[in-house]
Amino acid sequence: MRALVDGQPADAIGIDDRGLAYGDGLFETLAVQAGRPCLWDRHLARLASGCRRLGLACPDAEVLRDEAMMLARGHARAVLKITLTRTGRGRGYRPAPDAGVRRMLAISAWPPPRDGDAGVAVRLCHTVCGLSPVLAGLKHLGRLEQVLARAEWDDPDVPEGLMLDPLGAVVEATQANLFLERQGRLVTPRLDAAGVAGVVRGLAMDLAAAAGEPVREDRVVLEDVRSAQALYLTNSLIGVWRVARFEGREYDLSRPVHPVMARTVERAYGP
Amino acid sequence: MRALVDGQPADAIGIDDRGLAYGDGLFETLAVQAGRPCLWDRHLARLASGCRRLGLACPDAEVLRDEAMMLARGHARAVLKITLTRTGRGRGYRPAPDAGVRRMLAISAWPPPRDGDAGVAVRLCHTVCGLSPVLAGLKHLGRLEQVLARAEWDDPDVPEGLMLDPLGAVVEATQANLFLERQGRLVTPRLDAAGVAGVVRGLAMDLAAAAGEPVREDRVVLEDVRSAQALYLTNSLIGVWRVARFEGREYDLSRPVHPVMARTVERAYGP
Repeated sequence: MRALVDGQPADAIGIDDRGLAYGDGLFETLAVQAGRPCLWDRHLARLASGCRRLGLACPDAEVLRDEAMMLARGHARAVLKITLTRTGRGRGYRPAPDAGVRRMLAISAWPPPRDGDAGVAVRLCHTVCGLSPVLAGLKHLGRLEQVLARAEWDDPDVPEGLMLDPLGAVVEATQANLFLERQGRLVTPRLDAAGVAGVVRGLAMDLAAAAGEPVREDRVVLEDVRSAQALYLTNSLIGVWRVARFEGREYDLSRPVHPVMARTVERAYGP
Repeated sequence: MRALVDGQPADAIGIDDRGLAYGDGLFETLAVQAGRPCLWDRHLARLASGCRRLGLACPDAEVLRDEAMMLARGHARAVLKITLTRTGRGRGYRPAPDAGVRRMLAISAWPPPRDGDAGVAVRLCHTVCGLSPVLAGLKHLGRLEQVLARAEWDDPDVPEGLMLDPLGAVVEATQANLFLERQGRLVTPRLDAAGVAGVVRGLAMDLAAAAGEPVREDRVVLEDVRSAQALYLTNSLIGVWRVARFEGREYDLSRPVHPVMARTVERAYGP
C-alpha cells in the first residue's frame, strides 16, 4: 500500500477537489526512519495550527497517526506526505458551510543522499517570493513561486537557491529555511510576511532557546548572508545542510558546526 | 459526459498531480451560452500567455476547442472550466526536464442568475491579497487568499468583497475585476504585483481603447473607490455588475451605464 485517501487505499481524487482547484489545503513532508515518521508531534502541531488559520477541520490526531504508521511500517527510510484539502460541494471560492476535510497520505522513496557536512553550493534565485501576510508561515498548497524558482537552474551540484521578497529581504531557500551564524549567534529570517515556518526550523529555535541563546528572527538582507560566518539550511528531509558557497562567497567549513545546529541534526530524524 | 482528462471521459486525477501538490498550473472559467463557450479566443490567449510565463507546454488549440465544444454542446447555459497542470515524475518543486501538461475540462450548472443592472452590494475584505510580481495577473491554481476572503461573510445579499494589497492599494474583488468611473473616464487597478487579469477586464479595455478613450490602469486606493461616480465588477460569468453600495457609500444607479461597460455586457456572452 502506497497511499490512503480518507483511510482507504487509493491514489486518486476528483478533479473538483478544492486542493487542486484553489490550493485550499495544507501539506506536510516527513522523513520516515526505521519504520516511523520523524518529528511527528511537531508536524502534527503545525498541521493543526495551519488548519486553525484556514478555518479547516483538522483530522483526528489518532486517525492520522494510525494511517501514517501503517504506511511507514517496514520502510528503513522513506518520505511520507500528508495532504489535507477542504471538501464541500459547489463551484466558487466560498467554502461550503458544512465543509469537511479530506486527508491523503502517501509514501515514496527516500531521495538520493547528499552529505550535508561536506557543504552545499547555493545560488540566488531571480524568482521573487511574494508577500502574503495571511498565508505567511503556512505550508499551503500554493507553491508555484518555489516551482518557478527551482526551475531556474539544473546544475546537480547546486541543490538550493535563496529567494528574496519583493522588498529585497531574504526569505528562505526554495525548499528549506535559512540560518545565519554571526559571532556565534544564530539569526533566521522573520516569516511574518512570506515563507514557510519549517518544522526543523522550529526544532532548532526550541533547542537554542532551551540552551539560553534564542535564535533571533530578523529582517535579513543579502549583505547579512555574505558577511555571515556560516549558513545552514534546514528541512525535514535534509535535516541540516551547511552551506559551502553562495554566489562567489566561500564559507569556512573547518569551523565547528554551531552547537545548536549539531543538536538539531541529532534530533531531526528522531521521534 | 461531464468531464474530460486528457481527452478521455474521467473525473479523477492522481494525488501526485502537481496541480494539487504545488498549485503548478492554470485555469479558465468560461460561460457557455447556446452550446458554445463564450470569449473563446480571449480565454485561449490568456491560457497560452500563462503557459509561457510558467514554462508550461500549452495544449494544441484545436484539441482544446474540440474538447470544449464537445462538453458545451446542448447546454443552453453552463460553466466550462479548463485546468492545466504540469506533469512529470518525482517529488520536489523542480519540474521534470520532460514535463508535459495535463488538461482537464469540466462542465457544470450555470449559477443562479442575479440582475447586475439592479446593482450589487460590495464589502471590504479583511483578508489581504498578497504581492507576487512573478504570479501577478495569472489565473494560477493558488487561490487560497480569495478563499479566505470569501469565507469572511455569508450574507447572500452581498455577493462580492474588495481586497487590498499589503500596502493598501485596491486590487480586485474576490472573483471579479473592478472598474471605477470618474468624470466619465474608466480606471482599473494595475495588476503588476497582485490580482488576476480577467478576460472580461481585457475585453472592456480593448473596447475602450477602440473607442478612443483607453481605460487608465492606476494605483487605486479606498478613497478613489468611495469618490467614484460608479463602480463596475467584471468576470466571465457575471459579465458586468454595477455596484449599488460599498461599505456605506451608495452609488447613483439612475445614471446611465458607461457606454464601454454597456458594450462589454453585449459582448461578454458572445463568441
